[in-house]
Parts: sequence; structure tokens; C-alpha cells
Amino acid sequence: MAQQETQNGDSIKADAEITFTAVKLQVLVEAPKANDAVQFYKAAFGAVETGRTTQPKRKAEQELPHIISAQLQLAGSTIIVSDSLMTLHRMPSLSLTRVVKTGGTGITVCLETEDAEAAISKAVAAGAVAEGEILEGDGACCGAGRVGKVKDPYGLVWVISSPAKKSNTDVEA
Amino acid sequence: MAQQETQNGDSIKADAEITFTAVKLQVLVEAPKANDAVQFYKAAFGAVETGRTTQPKRKAEQELPHIISAQLQLAGSTIIVSDSLMTLHRMPSLSLTRVVKTGGTGITVCLETEDAEAAISKAVAAGAVAEGEILEGDGACCGAGRVGKVKDPYGLVWVISSPAKKSNTDVEA
Repeated sequence: MAQQETQNGDSIKADAEITFTAVKLQVLVEAPKANDAVQFYKAAFGAVETGRTTQPKRKAEQELPHIISAQLQLAGSTIIVSDSLMTLHRMPSLSLTRVVKTGGTGITVCLETEDAEAAISKAVAAGAVAEGEILEGDGACCGAGRVGKVKDPYGLVWVISSPAKKSNTDVEA
Repeated sequence: MAQQETQNGDSIKADAEITFTAVKLQVLVEAPKANDAVQFYKAAFGAVETGRTTQPKRKAEQELPHIISAQLQLAGSTIIVSDSLMTLHRMPSLSLTRVVKTGGTGITVCLETEDAEAAISKAVAAGAVAEGEILEGDGACCGAGRVGKVKDPYGLVWVISSPAKKSNTDVEA
């Protein structure tokens, strides 16, 4: 299959080589409310929790363990619920505490594929904007692997992940 | 199966009787950009359009036909893309034109079930807030049928629909 060249010189795979294997919703709620949200989705919609990944509890910082991801099943779809941490930045000169959202709340869509780099490059070539680096995943929506984000021209954030780093590509986002 | 009573006296069905058959994402973009969004999702992610419902073009009001719903398939999931209309309200006393969003942009999740009224009542009993009336659907995410919305305690809007009005229930949300 022929390789395409993007404007910044990245080599991306042609359409037939990029296949998405899963679409998952990720609901980000302000920490530490993810656990409440999971209970709500169980009670309201009959969602079934199939797994949960948490960070160890740290004294004096948070009462509840930070939920990296709770996996829910609903009508054949996977919905991920995660705590979105808010970082407090104190501004001494103003004697104010300014709250800066580091993760945001809301919903993103997670796409799983075999080659996150190639998929992200293709999305960027089509008009999306890469958000941050492609990193080794933290399990937030897809387990260990390569994870990157793009924002589409309509404001929606897509998380694109692949299960392991591909050694046959040297694309850097 | 026993019936449950909610605080406002609605009779809702017990868990085993409410089953969701599909979860669909609905992406709402500011009209008339839904068509652009569809083209983007095809180019960026290889989504396949499987159907489209539009409103007839009206002269002088809109150049492009309003897309009620364009159905995309991606990795076994359905993603609906819709134009979200902005209604202009002129305020003569201020000599200003105030733009009021009637639909909003962003993403909602559509849940399909056999009995939208019962499902919405259960969600409200669990802590969600009903948004508007349950109406005969306009095909936005689910074809003809009963459609209602709830906002969950975490800010996410869920559209809950059923294919036809159930005659064996008298629940009003």
C-alpha cells in the first residue's frame, strides 16, 4: 500500500491500513466523584461494572482513591468513567487560590486501533489538531499502550490508542 | 415483577424490565457544519455514512439543508452527526441581536430501549433531571418514536428513546 506524505513530512498509512477496533465513551467527572457517577449509571441505566483501575490513596490529598478508569458495559458498548483531577494553583500576590482544570470534565471518545501514531497523523492531515504528545498509556481508556489525543474542528476530543508501540514506524507527533 | 414508586408517585418498572438495546453517540455541531463534520469523520477515521435525514432547504434562511441526522458507522458503533440550529432573537429595546442557542453543540449519548418513559422515570429516580417533555421523535438519533432527555448529576445529557409509544404504561415524565 502506498504511503502518503502529510504537510509536515510525516509518513502516514493509506486508508486500508488503518482500522479502528473499538469506540468507547470516556466520561470525565471532577474528582473524586467518579465513584458516585459509576453508582449512578448502575442505578439509572443498569450499567454493569466490569473492571476498575485506581491510584493508591494518598493521605491528606484525597479521601477516595483516584479512579483512573472504571469500565462499564451498557447495551454492548463500553463506557469509561474517570476522575478528572483539578490542580490548585495558589497565587500569593493576589492572595487568591486559582483553580486550574488539568483534565477537564465532560466526554471524550476513545478509538482503539493497531497503530495510534498512524491514525493520529491521518486525523491531523484531515484537519484535526494534535493535543500533547503520544505517550505510553496510563490505562485511562485502553490499558497499557500508546495513547494520543486530537481535537477535531468541531471541538470534540478523540483519544486514539493502540495496544503496544509499533516498531515499524518512526512517526513522532 | 414488582412496581416501584418514585417520590413523585410515578410507577416505574423494576430493573429487569428495562433493557437498553443500543448506545449511540450524537455529535451536535453548529449549523450548517454537520456536512463538513461528516466529511471530516470519513477522512480522518474512515467512518462510513449509512444514512442521512435532512429538512427541506428553505430559501433565505439557510443555504444548506439542515441535517437532522447523518448516521456513521465506526468500529461497530453508530455515531450520529446533527446540525444544531442557533435561533436569533432580536431585542429591539437594546438595538441588539442576541444569539440564543436552542440546541447547543457538543456530544450527547443516545440510549435506545423499549420504553422510554419507564427508562427516563428510573433515571430521574436515580438522580437525573428530565429536560423537557417526552415527545414523538424527529429522527434525530433514533427514527420515529418516543424521545426524551435527562441530564445526569455530572452534566452529561442522555437522549433516551423507544421505537413506539407503549400503550401498556401511563407514566408521564
